[in-house]
Amino acid sequence: MDVIAQIRQGDIRATARLMRDLDEGDPRAREVLKGLYPYTGRAHVVGITGSPGVGKSTLTDKMIHYLREQGLTVGVVAVDPTSPFSGGAILGDRIRMQRHATDEGVFIRSLATRGHFGGLTASARAVINVLDAMGKDFILVETVGVGQDEVDIVHAAHTTIVVTVPGMGDDIQAIKAGILEIGDLFVVNKADREGADRTYQDLLTMIDLRQTEASSDGWRPQVFKTEAQKNIGVPELMAAIFAHREFLHRDGGRYLAQIMAPRLRQELLDLVLQGIKDTILPRLLADISLDQVLQDIANRKTDPYTVSDEIVGNLAGRMG
Amino acid sequence: MDVIAQIRQGDIRATARLMRDLDEGDPRAREVLKGLYPYTGRAHVVGITGSPGVGKSTLTDKMIHYLREQGLTVGVVAVDPTSPFSGGAILGDRIRMQRHATDEGVFIRSLATRGHFGGLTASARAVINVLDAMGKDFILVETVGVGQDEVDIVHAAHTTIVVTVPGMGDDIQAIKAGILEIGDLFVVNKADREGADRTYQDLLTMIDLRQTEASSDGWRPQVFKTEAQKNIGVPELMAAIFAHREFLHRDGGRYLAQIMAPRLRQELLDLVLQGIKDTILPRLLADISLDQVLQDIANRKTDPYTVSDEIVGNLAGRMG
Repeated sequence: MDVIAQIRQGDIRATARLMRDLDEGDPRAREVLKGLYPYTGRAHVVGITGSPGVGKSTLTDKMIHYLREQGLTVGVVAVDPTSPFSGGAILGDRIRMQRHATDEGVFIRSLATRGHFGGLTASARAVINVLDAMGKDFILVETVGVGQDEVDIVHAAHTTIVVTVPGMGDDIQAIKAGILEIGDLFVVNKADREGADRTYQDLLTMIDLRQTEASSDGWRPQVFKTEAQKNIGVPELMAAIFAHREFLHRDGGRYLAQIMAPRLRQELLDLVLQGIKDTILPRLLADISLDQVLQDIANRKTDPYTVSDEIVGNLAGRMG
Repeated sequence: MDVIAQIRQGDIRATARLMRDLDEGDPRAREVLKGLYPYTGRAHVVGITGSPGVGKSTLTDKMIHYLREQGLTVGVVAVDPTSPFSGGAILGDRIRMQRHATDEGVFIRSLATRGHFGGLTASARAVINVLDAMGKDFILVETVGVGQDEVDIVHAAHTTIVVTVPGMGDDIQAIKAGILEIGDLFVVNKADREGADRTYQDLLTMIDLRQTEASSDGWRPQVFKTEAQKNIGVPELMAAIFAHREFLHRDGGRYLAQIMAPRLRQELLDLVLQGIKDTILPRLLADISLDQVLQDIANRKTDPYTVSDEIVGNLAGRMG
C-alpha cells in the first residue's frame, strides 16, 4: 500500500514519518503532500490562542476529551515552545496529556521552529493538510498569541478561540492590538478568579464596538467563562464551536468560501515566495560577488537598500 | 537644509516624519534611508528581550536614565504591543516614561505592526539605522521574547540581554528553546522574589553547558540579579554592557566583524526577498489566471504546492 493510502487510513507511523520528512525538506515528502491534497477540506480547524499561562493546554485537553467522547477523531497542532504538547511545560501537564498520546483517534504534532517551509505558518498549514487528509474530524491548533506568526497560524483556522484570564491587563491590551479582529469565540478561563466579570464585560464591550464597524450579516463573536481544569463551561464552548461550524456551512458554505478565499490566496503566495527564496535567490546571489558587496556595505561604500534594489531590478529586467 | 543633514543633526521632527514615511512605504523615504546609511555604524545597539511581565520596560527606563547621566544620547525601539513605549501598558509605566519623552537626548520609536518593510525585523533594522545616523550613542531595542520575529530583531543588536524573573518555569523553558543561544548577558529581575538564586544558578548551569560546546575564545555570558524598580544591579549590568562593547571592538573589531557579517548578509537577503515580493510577485501572478487557479485549488482539482512549483519553475526558466 502506498504512503498516501496509508495516511488516509490513519496510519500513525506513516503520518509521523511524513511530517518528519516534511520538516527536513525531503522533496518526496512534498510530492506526498500534493497527493494528499485532494483528500483535504473535510476537517474543521479550530485555532486556540492566548498568552502563556491562560490555560490553553488544559482547555485543549478538555476539548480533545469532549470530541473523543462524541466519537470524533482529533488532530492537534501545538505551536508553542512552552506547550506541554511540545514538551516545554511542567510535568503535571505533560502527564495529563499522555492519555491522548495512547489514543489512536488523536494525533498530536508540535511545532517550535520554522522547518523547511520557511515559516511556522507554512509548516502549520502543511501539518493541518496532512491531518485533514488523514481523516481527522477536528483539528485543534494551539498557539501562543503574541507574535505575528501566531496570528497568521490562527488565521488558518475555521473557528478561532481567543483565551484570556481575569485581571490580565496586558492580555486585554494584546487582544486590542490585533487578536480581537480574528476571534470568533472568546474565553475567560480561570473564571473563579477575581475580576472575571469585569474581563467578561470588557470583551463584550469590545465586540460591540467591532460589530458596529463590521457588516451586520456576519458571525457575532461570543464570550464564555470557563474553568477548564474542572471542565466548567467547556461543553457550552464546544456547542458554540459546532454552531460556528454550522454558520460557516450555511447557504451552501457561502461564509466558509468567503473566509477561506483570501487565506488560500495567502497560502499560495507564501509558498511561491518560499520557492523563490529556495531556488531563485541563490541564483541571483551567484551572479554578484556577494562577499565583496557585503564588504562594501560593511565599509559604508554602499548600502543594503541600494544593493537590494539593484538585484531586484536586474531580475525584473531578465523577465523581459 | 536637506532632510539627511537635519536628521544627522538630531532633528526630532524630521526624524519622526521619516519614520512615518518609511512605515507608509514612501519611496522617497527609502532614498533618504540610503543617504543616511554612510553615517551609520557608530551606535552601540543593545537588545533587551524576555516574556511579558519580567520588567523589561522598567529596566529599559533605568538604562536610559543611566546612559543620560553619563551624557550619552539614546534611541529606543520598542517592539512590543504591550510595552509602555508603544502605548499598551498600564498608566503608571507610561507616566514614568514621560520624563524621557521630553528629553532631547532620547528618541523613542515603537513598532507593533509589520509596516512596509514586510516584517518587524526589517522595520526595526531601518529604525535602528535612522537612530544610528541621527548620532545616538546607544540604541536600546526592547522586544517580547516569544516569537521568531523577536529573536530575529534581537539578533540585530550588538549586545543582547535576556531578562527573566525568579520562578518562571515557562520562561526558563523559553530561554532553552532558542533565546539562550542569543544572550550575551542574562538578567534575573525582581531578584527580591523567592527562587531568585535558583533561577540564577539555572542560568549559570545552562551557560556552562553552552560554553563547553562553543569555542573558548568567545564572550562568556554573564548573569545579573537586578531589582530594576529600585535600580539595584542596574549599574553592574551597564558596566557589563560597556565591557561587552569593548570585547567586540578588541583586536581591531575582529569579534564585531565576526558577529555582524552573517547579520548583514541576512539583512540584505531579507530586503531582496521583500523587493521580489513587492515588484516581481505581482508580475508572476498577473501571468496566471489567479482567480481560476484559486478556484481550482478550493475545488481540489489542483493544490497550492503544485501551483507554486509551476510559478517558481516558470520564473527560473525565464531567467535563462
